[in-house]
Amino acid sequence: MSENPLRLGVLISGSGTNLQAIIDAIEEGALDARIEIVISSRPSAYGLVRAEQAKIKTMALNKDTYSDPEAADRLIVKALQEAQVDYVVMAGYMRMVRTPILEAFPNRVLNLHPALLPSFKGAHAIDDAYAYGVKVTGITVHFANEDYDCGPIIAQRALSVEEGWSANQLEEHIHELEHKLYPEVLQMLAEGRIHVQDDGRVRIDQR
Amino acid sequence: MSENPLRLGVLISGSGTNLQAIIDAIEEGALDARIEIVISSRPSAYGLVRAEQAKIKTMALNKDTYSDPEAADRLIVKALQEAQVDYVVMAGYMRMVRTPILEAFPNRVLNLHPALLPSFKGAHAIDDAYAYGVKVTGITVHFANEDYDCGPIIAQRALSVEEGWSANQLEEHIHELEHKLYPEVLQMLAEGRIHVQDDGRVRIDQR
Repeated sequence: MSENPLRLGVLISGSGTNLQAIIDAIEEGALDARIEIVISSRPSAYGLVRAEQAKIKTMALNKDTYSDPEAADRLIVKALQEAQVDYVVMAGYMRMVRTPILEAFPNRVLNLHPALLPSFKGAHAIDDAYAYGVKVTGITVHFANEDYDCGPIIAQRALSVEEGWSANQLEEHIHELEHKLYPEVLQMLAEGRIHVQDDGRVRIDQR
Repeated sequence: MSENPLRLGVLISGSGTNLQAIIDAIEEGALDARIEIVISSRPSAYGLVRAEQAKIKTMALNKDTYSDPEAADRLIVKALQEAQVDYVVMAGYMRMVRTPILEAFPNRVLNLHPALLPSFKGAHAIDDAYAYGVKVTGITVHFANEDYDCGPIIAQRALSVEEGWSANQLEEHIHELEHKLYPEVLQMLAEGRIHVQDDGRVRIDQR
């Protein structure tokens, strides 16, 4: 790891498999970053256990904070700023990221969406794509902004929906792609290669 | 060629490069089909010259027929039926395919769209995808139905938008993919391997 690894805050809600992929990439030396804090919207999220096992600081919203979205977001911003994170990484975070977080981290909040945006926005992307009958789908890493699933696209990967796959099989293959791509994109950030242009498109410097 | 090649009618409006790809695939023996008629919405379409060079019967709408869409579609249906085509192939055809054609050839009108549907419907798909800043786009072959660009998807191919490409470069790569995929899909039709299921998804039999 370099002397100045990228400082990350990771937002989760569930089992945290993408969090684990990021932790693993850091431990293997493939990602020059440090996760400074993991914040969960649910106290029971298994991702919190993964974070603790990796000796990462954690925070969870409780019922009171959860019920007031704006107050919750202010709490989250405070925790992210105290942890001095450079980027905020949504990893299976099942809440909207609202104005307080976006204003504190403009073009610095990343989301991973399990479809090739702008297709299949929303919370059921994999099932929606499967039901639609697409023959190619994929995943998208993008910067979050005020329009849900609409921010600047950083990276996408496609996969073919093979004949006879169930929706569950498709989901497994989507997750496999995710666990590979998300750490790769974070490493591009760590190398300073990702730039949002004035026209809203993202330029990636070649290595 | 087999004794009973697939009988195709091809609808064009312009230069007919996809028509040419189909003609070439037939001549090379990669596609077991015959183009029975090429119909152009414009008398000046260069695709008509390609058809004549390949000794294929042609028909073009003139100004009078063009101006009455329903009447034009009835003319087209008549010509397609007289040519006894099994399938109707839209190849750069810049008009809507309306009810008369769709009713005469249910799930037998194919369209090729230069994006990964349901993303970027409409007449400017390549430019729209480029401007949106997607990192992956592609092409879709689907059956046409009453909802524009919404019919059952038969095949899709993805391609990465490489860093630094212009919209024109993207368009060239899209067309390259098209000229490969469209004859492949038609050959699957010729082999009877394409089935629209009750749920609207398309099943392709393995060879």
